Amino acid sequence: MSGNTFGNSFRLTSFGESYGSFVGGVIEGCPPNMDIDFALINNAIKARQTSIFAYASQRKENDEVQFISGIMNGKTTGTPIAFLIKNQETSSTAYNKNKNVLKPSHGYFTYWKKYGIYDYKGSGRASARETIVRVIGGCFAMMYLQQYNITIKAYTTQIGQIQTNKKNLFYGETISSNPLHCPDNESYVKMLEVLESAKKNKDTIGAQVSCVIRNTPIGIGEPVFDKLHADLGKAMLSINAAKGFEIGSGFTSASMHGREHNDLFTKEFHTKTNHSGGIQAGISNGEVIYFSVAFKPISSIMKDQESIDIKGNPAVYIAGGKHDICVVPRVIPVVEAMAALVIADHILRFNAYKNN
Amino acid sequence: MSGNTFGNSFRLTSFGESYGSFVGGVIEGCPPNMDIDFALINNAIKARQTSIFAYASQRKENDEVQFISGIMNGKTTGTPIAFLIKNQETSSTAYNKNKNVLKPSHGYFTYWKKYGIYDYKGSGRASARETIVRVIGGCFAMMYLQQYNITIKAYTTQIGQIQTNKKNLFYGETISSNPLHCPDNESYVKMLEVLESAKKNKDTIGAQVSCVIRNTPIGIGEPVFDKLHADLGKAMLSINAAKGFEIGSGFTSASMHGREHNDLFTKEFHTKTNHSGGIQAGISNGEVIYFSVAFKPISSIMKDQESIDIKGNPAVYIAGGKHDICVVPRVIPVVEAMAALVIADHILRFNAYKNN
Amino acid sequence: MSGNTFGNSFRLTSFGESYGSFVGGVIEGCPPNMDIDFALINNAIKARQTSIFAYASQRKENDEVQFISGIMNGKTTGTPIAFLIKNQETSSTAYNKNKNVLKPSHGYFTYWKKYGIYDYKGSGRASARETIVRVIGGCFAMMYLQQYNITIKAYTTQIGQIQTNKKNLFYGETISSNPLHCPDNESYVKMLEVLESAKKNKDTIGAQVSCVIRNTPIGIGEPVFDKLHADLGKAMLSINAAKGFEIGSGFTSASMHGREHNDLFTKEFHTKTNHSGGIQAGISNGEVIYFSVAFKPISSIMKDQESIDIKGNPAVYIAGGKHDICVVPRVIPVVEAMAALVIADHILRFNAYKNN
Amino acid sequence: MSGNTFGNSFRLTSFGESYGSFVGGVIEGCPPNMDIDFALINNAIKARQTSIFAYASQRKENDEVQFISGIMNGKTTGTPIAFLIKNQETSSTAYNKNKNVLKPSHGYFTYWKKYGIYDYKGSGRASARETIVRVIGGCFAMMYLQQYNITIKAYTTQIGQIQTNKKNLFYGETISSNPLHCPDNESYVKMLEVLESAKKNKDTIGAQVSCVIRNTPIGIGEPVFDKLHADLGKAMLSINAAKGFEIGSGFTSASMHGREHNDLFTKEFHTKTNHSGGIQAGISNGEVIYFSVAFKPISSIMKDQESIDIKGNPAVYIAGGKHDICVVPRVIPVVEAMAALVIADHILRFNAYKNN
Repeated sequence: MSGNTFGNSFRLTSFGESYGSFVGGVIEGCPPNMDIDFALINNAIKARQTSIFAYASQRKENDEVQFISGIMNGKTTGTPIAFLIKNQETSSTAYNKNKNVLKPSHGYFTYWKKYGIYDYKGSGRASARETIVRVIGGCFAMMYLQQYNITIKAYTTQIGQIQTNKKNLFYGETISSNPLHCPDNESYVKMLEVLESAKKNKDTIGAQVSCVIRNTPIGIGEPVFDKLHADLGKAMLSINAAKGFEIGSGFTSASMHGREHNDLFTKEFHTKTNHSGGIQAGISNGEVIYFSVAFKPISSIMKDQESIDIKGNPAVYIAGGKHDICVVPRVIPVVEAMAALVIADHILRFNAYKNN
Repeated sequence: MSGNTFGNSFRLTSFGESYGSFVGGVIEGCPPNMDIDFALINNAIKARQTSIFAYASQRKENDEVQFISGIMNGKTTGTPIAFLIKNQETSSTAYNKNKNVLKPSHGYFTYWKKYGIYDYKGSGRASARETIVRVIGGCFAMMYLQQYNITIKAYTTQIGQIQTNKKNLFYGETISSNPLHCPDNESYVKMLEVLESAKKNKDTIGAQVSCVIRNTPIGIGEPVFDKLHADLGKAMLSINAAKGFEIGSGFTSASMHGREHNDLFTKEFHTKTNHSGGIQAGISNGEVIYFSVAFKPISSIMKDQESIDIKGNPAVYIAGGKHDICVVPRVIPVVEAMAALVIADHILRFNAYKNN
Repeated sequence: MSGNTFGNSFRLTSFGESYGSFVGGVIEGCPPNMDIDFALINNAIKARQTSIFAYASQRKENDEVQFISGIMNGKTTGTPIAFLIKNQETSSTAYNKNKNVLKPSHGYFTYWKKYGIYDYKGSGRASARETIVRVIGGCFAMMYLQQYNITIKAYTTQIGQIQTNKKNLFYGETISSNPLHCPDNESYVKMLEVLESAKKNKDTIGAQVSCVIRNTPIGIGEPVFDKLHADLGKAMLSINAAKGFEIGSGFTSASMHGREHNDLFTKEFHTKTNHSGGIQAGISNGEVIYFSVAFKPISSIMKDQESIDIKGNPAVYIAGGKHDICVVPRVIPVVEAMAALVIADHILRFNAYKNN
Repeated sequence: MSGNTFGNSFRLTSFGESYGSFVGGVIEGCPPNMDIDFALINNAIKARQTSIFAYASQRKENDEVQFISGIMNGKTTGTPIAFLIKNQETSSTAYNKNKNVLKPSHGYFTYWKKYGIYDYKGSGRASARETIVRVIGGCFAMMYLQQYNITIKAYTTQIGQIQTNKKNLFYGETISSNPLHCPDNESYVKMLEVLESAKKNKDTIGAQVSCVIRNTPIGIGEPVFDKLHADLGKAMLSINAAKGFEIGSGFTSASMHGREHNDLFTKEFHTKTNHSGGIQAGISNGEVIYFSVAFKPISSIMKDQESIDIKGNPAVYIAGGKHDICVVPRVIPVVEAMAALVIADHILRFNAYKNN
């Protein structure tokens, strides 16, 4: 079974290669009669755009989404919403110089071995180009979540050695004031230096993105396997370059004692602390949901690398193409989109049998 | 849709409450004509047993598994394998004293709000009792993986502040020589002290478990959403008390540069380093797969806790019941079982269309 | 992927062999807090019982269902409902005489070739014994449907050459007055003669069962593939011995003209005729849903049959065992149960996104 | 959960409205490195074309399929195959005259009630326009089946009162010699007369289509719920206007005795008769698979019909638009396509665990 569909009740099917004519998707299960917020879609596309930031790829991605079905008079109809985004840059001649040379730490090798085809052009499905589809799909999920007043906001909490100390100090208004969506300006300035230094060295750098979800109703999540944070974790780990996920207290919890970690109740059925990260036993408990995702440095560095060709002979992988220095800030709308898809899917799943 | 089935092609459906008569499961998709290794099953059950370790719950769990279907003459038949494990301790009078008092950081509250039923007895489905079902299911996955020579081994790498420095120094023979499956003896001794101290303080403590999977064939994993590490992450995060997951370089990757992180190829199509953790672009690349899971301290501490009752009035949750000090070592076979289920499921998924 | 789970949101997983210790099932997705109608369950079991009718198998099936999980204080809890039914007759020595001889028109051959195991004992999963699990699962679906006032009633409309002319004259009160649930007494008497004659000749006979579903809300069914009648058709065709399915005008429609077939609307949004069978474009339209299922004669006749053994040598399949003369009346509760599972599943599926 | 995806391992997701810009689909799970037979695709499209036959709709459907992804150098790549077919006729002004008038026996009413939107233009998703997507999807399934030498052929066996007596006399070479794919020429001539008469009367007429599948390997089908004929039944019943399905002896079996119906084995593990229709206990047995599908007369007749408007007031539904007199011959490639999708899906499902 192929793995190009995400979700159970609210589902996104993704298709398209980096250097094909289009990438696109099909959204199934989106409720009918929902007003489509085209501004929200355009903003999300812009947030993922390449040209917005000095440390982002200069690939031409002035994306516009074309809707094929499932929409009438500005509203969803309940039928599948298919959409396309044209790949404006489909010439892959830049890749010719590395024809048959394996790119280190990239999907070329594993795709080749799995599918029996060595696609040297822009890595096909393994390209992060695919994430634009997630962003569009996520926008429809977010439109659905708006009626619950649910908000989702991701922000940069680490680049290289620089970590903000506001990781879990749930975000305030300051976040959007800088292009990295970093919650404190001091860290932001240092992060820019790290990016500048990596760029000078023709290198790339890893990052960490955190995310908060507010106003999720109590009761969302389906134990014992489809716990809400398990599905959030899968969603995040499915994003290109993701290497780690933690919910609430996360890896810190391994060094904590129970007395310190337990979230005691207030009289209003809230909790005094929120080490749980808004999810208890796999089900949302009404507190703020927050989690973090670790991303490795992008493998496409601007220096040549020693490698082998597809026959196993030594070869040099020549630097080139258009690539980001770091996954942030472009991955931020992708994290938000995947979170929205998970929450919407679980609300629909719960709707099926609640109030019966 | 309920979340009690795990996997697509190799599937485990789990059922049963902590204080019901039985817990059990149904395995679907297990290949026929496979010899059943009852010793493997018994060893896995023992490894999860309560009485084996001074810091584990003294609940009576001398478990024996009873097979109902899908087996003939010691072999699988290809039909669903149903099994039951009797709950030897079903008296829940110990829980009466906390009737209607919310237990901090536990599933009582969220289950109550979600399903409309407040089950004060041993937490029903939210109990870790349920993990015995995963262990049995995982054993069948492991039997299947044996024909590929795949081995899966989990081990303790952190308890409280004590972390082994051998976390990613893939395990050698020493691991099993101590009850915590800690890779170095020095850390083991310190971990025991942490457990002893927690016990004395009537407290619990968090932990980290790492796991290595050897000999996975190249090509396993289904991008773009069902990447192998995304499904491993979901599997691990679905285990009780799990708060974080990382694959390969994990959270450390956020502070690394691309030049340092990229795994360069050897002439034999292996890689010189393995920051990727054996998975590239969501597909196994033939290297050792390794990952870590963070677990919070168990919420059932042996001290009374201030809380509220189901009407919102202040109340004391009185300590009691039989509980572990820490999820390790009992969670180790659970981690291994979930990993086996993921790998087996993905091999079957790939089988469907490869070699065509 | 194994095929032992039915449904998407309301799901039944079935397990167990004819001559194993138990058959059983797991119901997932059943809404919580639903009162369990044990009388309904017992009546359905009785309706499927062997001993109730002179032309039914004399196999001992004084079935009692044992619930393992998912129930507390007589109500569903929202967690998986597992149940077992003991096989009271597990000695399969009666089958020894045909060891290694292929039974004509039965699943022995295909199971053997598919799974690589020749199980000569009572046909394992291929036995109609398995349908008791469907009946129990269907009861929970029916309990859920009761809140919609939905009723489901199946009845015999043909045995051999005898067909009632009341096939689509939706049933009245008279149906239950005879053991075959035949809508007219004249046909009933003739059907008995056909059964008597088949019994005398040590033969079996085919049958047709029709079914009506009343009070289904408008809007149930998920085009374009999961049309309501498509899922009803699959459900019915999955029952042992089923060879055909038709909805509404069915095969008769092939000889009709559009002007005659079209169901014109009344002013109350109902239709004057109901050739559509209560489903239009795959979605319930508020009219009575009705369909028919054709069943072949049971292959287990009481005369020896020429056959071959598993090596391909001529051999005689010796008559024996305990078998029905005809699938009716025992298949009637099975038809009703499968119909209930389909309707409940589709209502839950629709719940997920309606009213949003 | 939406119902626009068909299949488990070989999956087709369909999207698009009758009067939208495009209809299209996404194929997931199609094995990589398969040569694409564009001639096969074009022939299937032509067979479904409108203009080929005097009794078919004159709607402009000179269809060409545009592939978006999943194909490289004339081969499948293993990634999702997305495709579009442009709707050449998207002006729906012909439908304005019936704005807000319910069309008898059509999906307008049920779609309106289900999704809350009354789409008076060409019926949107409920239009048979959608079946072009099934035909393209089915072509990829057929390409896969070619390596097993599997052939699938559907043919007309009834129009109105005219039935060929060669329904189950598995087809020979003569079938394709007439535009209706009717196996005997005598019936063909009479069928033409029936069509001519219906056309003259501005009426439509029902039909029956039969289909044979040759060379299916033994062992395909997943009991107990996903029996091969149950999934074939669902596939056929999901086609527009389908009202009935029968496998092998079908409805005739209801009047047969077991002694007559049982298929006795030959020494070569074949059967002397084939009442089973090539499937035993839900699993292919190596004989020819054959089945029939009943189709109602198309509801779009060329005479005005009394109806109501969406407020329940009496109104006339005015005849118009471009419609077929009968589902045949255009439904024939649709039947073949759906059959191919079922067989391919089940082969992949079996591949997952066989030979292990």
